[in-house]
Amino acid sequence: MSKLVGNLMFGQSGGPTSVINSSAAGVFIEALKHSDHIQKVYGAAHGIVGILNENFYDIGQEDLDELWRLKNTPSSALGSCRYKLANPEVDDSDYRRLLEVFKKYNIRYFLYNGGNDSMDTCNKISKFMQKAGYECRVMGVPKTIDNDLYGTDHCPGFASAAKYIATSIMEVYLDARVYDSNMIAVIEIMGRNAGWLAAASALAAHKGQGPDLIYLPEIPFDLDKAIKDIQTVYEKNGKVIIAISEGVKTQDGKYLPELVNDVGVDSFGHKQMGGTASVLANYIKRHFNCKVRAVEISLLQRCAAHLASKADVEEAFLAGQTAVQKALEGLTDYMVGFERENSPEYRCNIKLLPLDQVANTEKLIPRDWINAEGNFVNDQYIQYVLPLIQETASPEMIDGLPRFAKLKKIRVQADE
Amino acid sequence: MSKLVGNLMFGQSGGPTSVINSSAAGVFIEALKHSDHIQKVYGAAHGIVGILNENFYDIGQEDLDELWRLKNTPSSALGSCRYKLANPEVDDSDYRRLLEVFKKYNIRYFLYNGGNDSMDTCNKISKFMQKAGYECRVMGVPKTIDNDLYGTDHCPGFASAAKYIATSIMEVYLDARVYDSNMIAVIEIMGRNAGWLAAASALAAHKGQGPDLIYLPEIPFDLDKAIKDIQTVYEKNGKVIIAISEGVKTQDGKYLPELVNDVGVDSFGHKQMGGTASVLANYIKRHFNCKVRAVEISLLQRCAAHLASKADVEEAFLAGQTAVQKALEGLTDYMVGFERENSPEYRCNIKLLPLDQVANTEKLIPRDWINAEGNFVNDQYIQYVLPLIQETASPEMIDGLPRFAKLKKIRVQADE
Repeated sequence: MSKLVGNLMFGQSGGPTSVINSSAAGVFIEALKHSDHIQKVYGAAHGIVGILNENFYDIGQEDLDELWRLKNTPSSALGSCRYKLANPEVDDSDYRRLLEVFKKYNIRYFLYNGGNDSMDTCNKISKFMQKAGYECRVMGVPKTIDNDLYGTDHCPGFASAAKYIATSIMEVYLDARVYDSNMIAVIEIMGRNAGWLAAASALAAHKGQGPDLIYLPEIPFDLDKAIKDIQTVYEKNGKVIIAISEGVKTQDGKYLPELVNDVGVDSFGHKQMGGTASVLANYIKRHFNCKVRAVEISLLQRCAAHLASKADVEEAFLAGQTAVQKALEGLTDYMVGFERENSPEYRCNIKLLPLDQVANTEKLIPRDWINAEGNFVNDQYIQYVLPLIQETASPEMIDGLPRFAKLKKIRVQADE
Repeated sequence: MSKLVGNLMFGQSGGPTSVINSSAAGVFIEALKHSDHIQKVYGAAHGIVGILNENFYDIGQEDLDELWRLKNTPSSALGSCRYKLANPEVDDSDYRRLLEVFKKYNIRYFLYNGGNDSMDTCNKISKFMQKAGYECRVMGVPKTIDNDLYGTDHCPGFASAAKYIATSIMEVYLDARVYDSNMIAVIEIMGRNAGWLAAASALAAHKGQGPDLIYLPEIPFDLDKAIKDIQTVYEKNGKVIIAISEGVKTQDGKYLPELVNDVGVDSFGHKQMGGTASVLANYIKRHFNCKVRAVEISLLQRCAAHLASKADVEEAFLAGQTAVQKALEGLTDYMVGFERENSPEYRCNIKLLPLDQVANTEKLIPRDWINAEGNFVNDQYIQYVLPLIQETASPEMIDGLPRFAKLKKIRVQADE
């Protein structure tokens, strides 16, 4: 272990997931064990914004039980942000401010949890500190339900969302078949650029209770073609279930609500743009004389800790824990990733990825995992995801309801 | 056991729930044990409509394992309907047709699973058969997520939906607090006339992670008053979570989308009326300069068998089983209801309710369980619901996904 004594700062960034707090638990519980190197463990309120504003919590004052409960608590307990740092060559004021705060609080370990943008943030901060001659070890901890981070087999947060989506769609599939009349259901799933999550609906189809058609951002969306796809299923079954990513766009980059121009005007004359599912549902209603239902899984898909994947929860924790261990060993400028073993049983090993390789690169579903028609994924996708969702990790239950972590969040005082 | 030998017909009616199939399992498994009295067990395809059309399945040909799996399979495996029989004094053609089918297939036991309307259907059919001198024992099996059936402590289907809603809202509560900016979330919950289900959001608040305001159909909705309520919470916390029943109406009976006249017009000139949450969210957006999010829990709340209440699943099964047993004992024209014991531990006993008492009567939340302001429920509601949601009943899982029942559905041939 390479000797560097000081304090540790951890922050959460970007959209929450079911397991982002599990990584926080991994970081905090591991860091608190190493008081010889890490004197204080801080949690930034709302990521980098909290650091810029000197707004962070003293994690050493939290109950250890509550820190363990973070492992099964969804969302972002410290608060998150979507703040993007400027290019330091253009404007380095934020970086200078960060350096000032790091110096003031003797931050020697900086761990940041997030997706592409956050890894870019990590990378820029680290480079700036190095240039300024301030020794600080920087590690990225991955998270994103979108599963689009480069270089890692998968991302913490994805498997839990995939498991929830597949299960919920199996349930909706049964519900949508109740009446003796035709019915089309359009289910909207998160994912702006990558379709990993929308494709998880195929797991439900794999079990015989899933969508007929899946539309992904990876394939340019053609509305006329989609109507034809739907027509074919409709004529055969009278019931159609469509899973669609919120991020589908046409060849020339238009999102579905823009394409259909389905902009409502309320009584005050304000324009209201619908979501992808409701816009498509309204459009379909005009082509098919039947009941059409739009279901937006909405926030539920990224916070459903009650049905998290056990592998996901454990790996998220491990990613946080490993980031601390590797930083203590003297490493810096890496993101903790995962590499799947080529074994019959699912096993994943830690893999360290240089931050500048990960930053701002997006991983999409390979084209050959999508069918020729571009409206479903094939067995390669199924075999990739199935091992990730096998077991369930549920939070502790009290009175039949989850007992999520409640932190004291004791703010660090400026004069410490 | 009073001697009446013949066949049994069971049908499912109205909107599905997580446990309507659990009652079917109770009916089928019990009925198949009594082949001395019940020669054939039939399941009507799409309720009463299937009987009118001689479309029903021979349940004796199903695998017993699959019938047991029905216990944890959501929705309505036989198919449901919303068909309302005419008043037989005005038009008795459907009744005469039913009598014809009952005679043709020697139906001597008729069990029907549903809510208010279905109990009315049961009652009318029974009276008609009696008048015609055709001996047939008729029993109602209750179900409704709305929990609005008269005379029973609660209704199968309610507790599972309540548990799912409370859990999901706890998770959304955490998600809605992630960013360092103001935010209002409007969560729409099912229930056209009774607010039992929307009120279940109060369970989340009871755990400190729930809505600030709850709007129920029991209390006339006043938009200006609601905006004032929201303003008060917003000024204090910057974050507001509102749970609203889809069925809230003003003093003069207008639903929220009608009230706000928030009717969008698409590019084809078709009117599109939003749901309660999205309409309220759009309205709020104009009053508060912050992010507003509408979340419709939609179909998910009535089919989320992965998080069903164990008491609910067991009671639904028991209701079906008891209906068969009581009919075999010679009873007719009753609905199986529940009576809670006045004991520290939760215990519920079976209570038989005459069908004509139950038919078409709605049970609302008592006014004194709702606060004076009319925007929340009090501890009487919490103490009523908590015992119903304590344990979880999950379906069998394969590959980390539910293994729901798959019936063969072998149609009964007319010449049998």
